[in-house]
Amino acid sequence: FIEQLPSIRETIRNATFFAIDCEFTGLASDRTIFPFDTPEEVYLKMVENSPHYIIIQFGLCAFRVEPQEAGKEKEGEEAKDTEPRVSYKCFNFFCYPKGRTNVFSCQGESMRFLADNGFDFNRLFREGLSYANEIDEQRYRADLRERQVSRAATILAAAEEESNDEEPKADVNAIPVPVELQQQLDDTAESIEEFLQSDRPELIVGKGNAFQRKLIYQLIEQRFQRKVSTSTVSLENNQKAIKVERKRTYEEEQAFDDQRRARENEDLETSIGMSLVLQELSKARKLIIGHNMLLDLFYVLRQFFKPLPADYQEFKRITKEYFPLLLDTKYLCTNAEIKVNVNSSVLAHVYDAVSQPPFSIPTVHPELPDHQYSVDDEKKHEAGYDAYLTGLCFLGLVSRFKVNLLQLHKDTTLRHYMNRIFITRLNDVNYIYLNGKE
Amino acid sequence: FIEQLPSIRETIRNATFFAIDCEFTGLASDRTIFPFDTPEEVYLKMVENSPHYIIIQFGLCAFRVEPQEAGKEKEGEEAKDTEPRVSYKCFNFFCYPKGRTNVFSCQGESMRFLADNGFDFNRLFREGLSYANEIDEQRYRADLRERQVSRAATILAAAEEESNDEEPKADVNAIPVPVELQQQLDDTAESIEEFLQSDRPELIVGKGNAFQRKLIYQLIEQRFQRKVSTSTVSLENNQKAIKVERKRTYEEEQAFDDQRRARENEDLETSIGMSLVLQELSKARKLIIGHNMLLDLFYVLRQFFKPLPADYQEFKRITKEYFPLLLDTKYLCTNAEIKVNVNSSVLAHVYDAVSQPPFSIPTVHPELPDHQYSVDDEKKHEAGYDAYLTGLCFLGLVSRFKVNLLQLHKDTTLRHYMNRIFITRLNDVNYIYLNGKE
Repeated sequence: FIEQLPSIRETIRNATFFAIDCEFTGLASDRTIFPFDTPEEVYLKMVENSPHYIIIQFGLCAFRVEPQEAGKEKEGEEAKDTEPRVSYKCFNFFCYPKGRTNVFSCQGESMRFLADNGFDFNRLFREGLSYANEIDEQRYRADLRERQVSRAATILAAAEEESNDEEPKADVNAIPVPVELQQQLDDTAESIEEFLQSDRPELIVGKGNAFQRKLIYQLIEQRFQRKVSTSTVSLENNQKAIKVERKRTYEEEQAFDDQRRARENEDLETSIGMSLVLQELSKARKLIIGHNMLLDLFYVLRQFFKPLPADYQEFKRITKEYFPLLLDTKYLCTNAEIKVNVNSSVLAHVYDAVSQPPFSIPTVHPELPDHQYSVDDEKKHEAGYDAYLTGLCFLGLVSRFKVNLLQLHKDTTLRHYMNRIFITRLNDVNYIYLNGKE
Repeated sequence: FIEQLPSIRETIRNATFFAIDCEFTGLASDRTIFPFDTPEEVYLKMVENSPHYIIIQFGLCAFRVEPQEAGKEKEGEEAKDTEPRVSYKCFNFFCYPKGRTNVFSCQGESMRFLADNGFDFNRLFREGLSYANEIDEQRYRADLRERQVSRAATILAAAEEESNDEEPKADVNAIPVPVELQQQLDDTAESIEEFLQSDRPELIVGKGNAFQRKLIYQLIEQRFQRKVSTSTVSLENNQKAIKVERKRTYEEEQAFDDQRRARENEDLETSIGMSLVLQELSKARKLIIGHNMLLDLFYVLRQFFKPLPADYQEFKRITKEYFPLLLDTKYLCTNAEIKVNVNSSVLAHVYDAVSQPPFSIPTVHPELPDHQYSVDDEKKHEAGYDAYLTGLCFLGLVSRFKVNLLQLHKDTTLRHYMNRIFITRLNDVNYIYLNGKE
């Protein structure tokens, strides 16, 4: 993932608009929502009784719209000179939190639904990406920085002490060695002496329990401090042990620490994982399309950015801060002109409807074979596929308004649908308007 | 599963003792447990702060001990005439709750641990068995019985009404038909008339919305009550519709209902699923062996029987009620004689230790190829394999005491270890004694 990240980021930077879709471990109950609730009431209810379900698959389809190349038209192509070229690249990310303290909820029915639709849970739990919200990310970064600074200081202090060339002090806090372990410790000391005479690069000792290792560390500090460096290693069966190497010089020690720091920094990026993609998506400040995207939006904010605020206006504010331009195709389907030909706003039904006149979906070109989908090879309820389909539906729906795809945000009809997120089951105002009062 | 259930039950009835092991979606935190807590304090803490983790894999290894057949000994076998023959049959059940209201928790680390050990989550969520604790089971059974009784009454009432041969009454509560739907309804009426003239066995109508179907039911009641029977069906895309068939006679209606009842009863058994196996296991009242089985016991009781009580004595009482004879091999490892040769009580280490003198594991014979394991084909952390390994460890450990496997419960040494469940991290009394005070 870390290797692919630069290319993912570039795709996001080069895109014109995005379609997204998420798969969850459960759906917040909508039983508490009544037909005449206001959008604010719906929001508050959802924040209150939303168990800790998570996004386990995030589908991102990046669409790129470019003016048709002048050269190509001449090569006998059909006369669609005014139509821009649309290409896309789809990603399908698996994610879940891997830590000991990370607990999430699952709804039996949702898991069964996903399983019935071919969701690959083995890939999820084997290869799924980590993520971190802003608070956790800041903590991870601060903790690591602190650890690295303190380690650098220790290395420096050790080097200075070395040059003082003092005799090791007798440690009054030394742990007394139990009689029954003395022989074992003597054997270890002997094997270290032997190792120092040999030309082997390293020696593994201390395969006993934690207390035995503590005694060995003490032994090394007392008798071999100037001669060997140690580090803790994990053996195959999770057994811990001590790796003994010849004492490194200050320069070697620093080079060693540089390597370690680089590895730690990469591990940190890995543990922030998916959030890096979402951060890039937020930074792009481009149009993001979803179909019935309220829950997706809720879960994305909570999982990758920050907890959902208890205040409705604050929710609107942070949503716009992270995603300034959203469009919900389910809400777009409430348009009177569209409604005539699209009588069900279920995603697959919308696709069927917009595949026929008076709509027309422009040809979309996959940028890379690894990131393409086909509507013939149905992968319903795979997030990447649903994101792709949402994008196609959007393109189909807006064909009705003869929208200029190169200037989406300037379209006056579309502007009425921007930042209005559809809410199901409401009779009255059936959307949340992020830019102001509903 | 329902087809295999009788054979599973028979295996349980014929077994001499069982070994069990479970895999969970998470482990109750042991951070709150201190070395000098009493067993009661540990119990209460675990009940209090145990999120809703569940058992997703239940391994059951049924061992059967029989006297060596007299005939076989003569056939030149080794002279082990006093040793009984041990055979086994292992089961590895996947389970999770499938309903809409069933929410369970997962710990990221546990899921990753299982995934790393090859746990098949796709099988879990595609084929996993349902289960129900006693309260849910009683409710399911009562609900179904009520539904069936009321349906039988309706069928009878309809038959009696029929024989009265009254004219259908004009229904004052009839829903007025909106003008725009009248044509559609007339078309439906016509198609039913046509159907009745034809020799087709059935007709599907009412593919519209719920209100349209309501109008059609009303139409049928008013005009076709004596001529057709209806039932609701689900079409491919989850669209509901009405199946219209020629009116069944009372006898046909009853036969139809008998079939339906049989199907419902089987569905009920399926939804109680895994609990039926655990109930059989409880009914057997035989020795059940686990390694470090405290959590297994907690989760088994909670998931398949009843919520864990807030009272410690009550917990002991219900545990003995369901499982009168338990043995924790981890606690057995605290035996002084055993400790000499078994210095780690991790399951795999115990197995290695008891594979050597002074221990000896008797040969165990798989009863069926589908239910066998081999220690060479390691499937560590698959519940069925771990149950099998626990059984082998038990057999190895008790070989030290020259226990008569045919009369396990009478052994005086073993009796000291029965119903004492090991608690990790305790310095003082490190077990729960189900039969009395620790």
